[in-house]
Amino acid sequence: MTLKIALAQTNFLVGNIAANVDNIIKAANHARDELGADIVVFPELTISGYPAEDLLLRADFIVEANNAVYQLAEQVTGIALVVGFPELDGDKLYNSAVVLHQGVRLACYRKQALPNYGVFDEQRYFTEGDQPGVFEFNGTFIGLTICEDVWKSGIIDATKQAGAELLLTINASPYNSGKIHQREAIISRQVKAAQIPLVYVNQIGGQDELIFDGASFVTDAQGDIVFRAEEFKEQISVIEFDGNKPLTNICVPLYNEIDSDYQALVLGIKDYVRKNSFQGAILGLSGGIDSALVLALAVDALGHDKVEAVLMPSRYTQDMSNEDAVLEAKALGVKYHIISIEPAVNAFTGMLAEVFAGTAKDTTEENIQARCRGVILMALSNKKGKLLLTTGNKSEMSVGYATLYGDMAGGFAPIKDVPKLLVYQLARFRNTLSWVIPERVITRPPSAELAPDQVDENSLPPYDILDPILERYVELDQSAEEIIAAGFRREDVVRAITLVDRNEYKRRQSPPGIRITSKAFGRDRRYPITSGYRGI
Amino acid sequence: MTLKIALAQTNFLVGNIAANVDNIIKAANHARDELGADIVVFPELTISGYPAEDLLLRADFIVEANNAVYQLAEQVTGIALVVGFPELDGDKLYNSAVVLHQGVRLACYRKQALPNYGVFDEQRYFTEGDQPGVFEFNGTFIGLTICEDVWKSGIIDATKQAGAELLLTINASPYNSGKIHQREAIISRQVKAAQIPLVYVNQIGGQDELIFDGASFVTDAQGDIVFRAEEFKEQISVIEFDGNKPLTNICVPLYNEIDSDYQALVLGIKDYVRKNSFQGAILGLSGGIDSALVLALAVDALGHDKVEAVLMPSRYTQDMSNEDAVLEAKALGVKYHIISIEPAVNAFTGMLAEVFAGTAKDTTEENIQARCRGVILMALSNKKGKLLLTTGNKSEMSVGYATLYGDMAGGFAPIKDVPKLLVYQLARFRNTLSWVIPERVITRPPSAELAPDQVDENSLPPYDILDPILERYVELDQSAEEIIAAGFRREDVVRAITLVDRNEYKRRQSPPGIRITSKAFGRDRRYPITSGYRGI
Repeated sequence: MTLKIALAQTNFLVGNIAANVDNIIKAANHARDELGADIVVFPELTISGYPAEDLLLRADFIVEANNAVYQLAEQVTGIALVVGFPELDGDKLYNSAVVLHQGVRLACYRKQALPNYGVFDEQRYFTEGDQPGVFEFNGTFIGLTICEDVWKSGIIDATKQAGAELLLTINASPYNSGKIHQREAIISRQVKAAQIPLVYVNQIGGQDELIFDGASFVTDAQGDIVFRAEEFKEQISVIEFDGNKPLTNICVPLYNEIDSDYQALVLGIKDYVRKNSFQGAILGLSGGIDSALVLALAVDALGHDKVEAVLMPSRYTQDMSNEDAVLEAKALGVKYHIISIEPAVNAFTGMLAEVFAGTAKDTTEENIQARCRGVILMALSNKKGKLLLTTGNKSEMSVGYATLYGDMAGGFAPIKDVPKLLVYQLARFRNTLSWVIPERVITRPPSAELAPDQVDENSLPPYDILDPILERYVELDQSAEEIIAAGFRREDVVRAITLVDRNEYKRRQSPPGIRITSKAFGRDRRYPITSGYRGI
Repeated sequence: MTLKIALAQTNFLVGNIAANVDNIIKAANHARDELGADIVVFPELTISGYPAEDLLLRADFIVEANNAVYQLAEQVTGIALVVGFPELDGDKLYNSAVVLHQGVRLACYRKQALPNYGVFDEQRYFTEGDQPGVFEFNGTFIGLTICEDVWKSGIIDATKQAGAELLLTINASPYNSGKIHQREAIISRQVKAAQIPLVYVNQIGGQDELIFDGASFVTDAQGDIVFRAEEFKEQISVIEFDGNKPLTNICVPLYNEIDSDYQALVLGIKDYVRKNSFQGAILGLSGGIDSALVLALAVDALGHDKVEAVLMPSRYTQDMSNEDAVLEAKALGVKYHIISIEPAVNAFTGMLAEVFAGTAKDTTEENIQARCRGVILMALSNKKGKLLLTTGNKSEMSVGYATLYGDMAGGFAPIKDVPKLLVYQLARFRNTLSWVIPERVITRPPSAELAPDQVDENSLPPYDILDPILERYVELDQSAEEIIAAGFRREDVVRAITLVDRNEYKRRQSPPGIRITSKAFGRDRRYPITSGYRGI
């Protein structure tokens, strides 16, 4: 008996239940009519979107999501649907997968493993299920699992013991660099141990900090991947099974990690702008590598006609910075403005002269320059309805090498989770597609250009030392002593860690940005501001 | 057999294990030598501070906290200690209470009820305990419980059934308005049902958003409160028991709610400044009610010599605003500066003239004024090492009636969780202690003074309508239809809710502020920015 299963790798909007239901219906009709599918499988919490966060605490939202399941059951015929929804039962909420067919609920499975670590807060909202989910369809016994269920041991086995011959897994598995290899390896191993084929459907799209990368797949009972959908794209695919045996072997090859990171950043910008209804994006273009990369990402995400750049030179801006910024804007075909910040800086200097009389120059004067740029950029953003992109990277965010309300001003921070060394790699990668970033921008020493002859390395260890220290301290939670033992100089470790510890207050007010590492600043890393902990 | 139990209502610093251990030793020695106590009981997670958030994921931090328990056991003699710590056992972490006496661990209890709602994330860090904790001391069987344990039914009963005659409960129970009544009522009822006396020790102090209010207490077996410590103050008290019968009846009377809220705000400012080592605080003083209240709170928290005010008039500032601001600064004895923002506003207007040519004036021009004030205030804060306090209230934060990087600029937002109507009540309350806010400031219609003849009620429903709508929507998660059914006009509800929904992005970049309601913006209310949910 053959069975055609469609994998609906969809990009839905969190919170918009009515639109999500419409899109489910369209996708189901397409899978039935164009692809001849018997079953169509959607990602985790399809109806609410994932993660809906505290919307899940609103009674009106939950009632609407539960009513939507009835509506779907009535409106889709001729194909079975597997959709995720926040299932209300009494005063308990479950993260559930329901199977609808010809107006009937064939099965409803409640997620058993609720992740509550990293970016996940599922135990804030949901009660754990305690039963495997198995249903019969066209003579095949099909098991249901949801995301974390198949990362933990035991649940696949229990589902098989309950009679399942084939597993459907619905997911909202967020991207980080290298995650796809980890995901496929762990799930293949579990499948192989249990000797049961598995259909894995992941959502795609950007949702605030998170990117979902798709790359849905099918494994046979030996854990070999026999189908893989594209990364970072919406796609509905159909796979034919003979009983529980997949009759296919079409795998889209995986991107390399740099390419994947680049795609993730482009998708993140595109979806944040689109889903929040901005008219486009603007950014400050300094002639440095960070803004050069963000400009390229923004244009690749939105198109050159939706992006504007602003050059805001001061007395400390070198000519080559302006020249290179203009080259970048021209290479990408974006409109640019040149607005010197000198009149505003002079005005503030005069206004503050009396209260600052007798004090020495310090970072205050540097911050005023950065904040004048922030005012200009926000004025343009407000007037034009375009999203202001900030251009700070993860190394800067880590050590606080940025000005609050200055270069940190903006609605979205695309490369906030990209360490400086990776910024260089991504810039070089982008230039291999087409030349958009002058070589000099990549090779000259980075500088904030807020004081005469300033370069980053006067204040910070060189990035090829700083970045690995930060990765160990921030992402891997290593102690100072462990990092020193790994071969780093004590003074560099002390400097880096002290700055990370002191700058939590800045990060708390930074705009959201795209998570591409295994631990981003944001919902991933929740540190107190008021803290006596010193990593060193 | 008599037993003297000391309640150590302490204010410790999250993350500083060495200092916390020193303070435990000092308090224990004081309880032994000055108060003649047999046992001294400290709050929940004494050693790490509460909430330590993701510091609890650091191996070095956990090892240090566990080693500190050995150190305490050796260094304190002649008195038993009950302290809270993050107990590591294999790869599991527990929220535990350990009893140390003469170098020996008499007992170690693992918290069974781990709250993971509201501001709490305990399931992110801890594994649940599954055993009651009872130990014998001087012939009395004493049970141990931790915070949430005594709010849920079942755990007190199980502890009594395991032999306890008297309960010690260690807590980190955060303040919100009216919480103390709820806390005492629930725990008294549980105690009465189980017929077991209870000693409740709560921490005090401010920790980022949270205020812990102390008000530790003792109930007899009938649930009657026979001792209550002060609210908002560090205090070590000793209570004598005859077996399990408390021999005391000294209850500090409770503050009324307005007074409590005021004390909470003062403590929050004081601890944020002190624990983060600022030199004092500065704020912009507009002549409006919000900044008048924040000034009074700051002076009551820090002393008049630690606070500076800045008046920043523009062409739209009325004379009475300047006059009243000066009166407030003089009444409280704080240094103040007057810096007109006109030169900077004119500079930006000129710089933007070309790109803004042909566009109509809108909120962009208003925001530029607010942002010029932000630049001035941050420059003073940077130069002087003083914390910039923002003066926005909860009503404004809810509807986004504030300028990002303008009046929202600052390190701490004391009245961020205070609705506008409560701002008025607190101002009137403060004037009953001593006259500091001119009557006209309280009675004139509120205005942002960013455009000619502007008053808040041109943009928003009147606050006596807006505030109750916001309370229902934000704090109680009611739907629009429920709010309308409660008697509010549909157009007011639509206006308010639409603004709340649209302004999550602003709140995400706002500074932390003091939580005094049952749901504050911050870790309490976690909404997506990108969201298709519309409450209306």
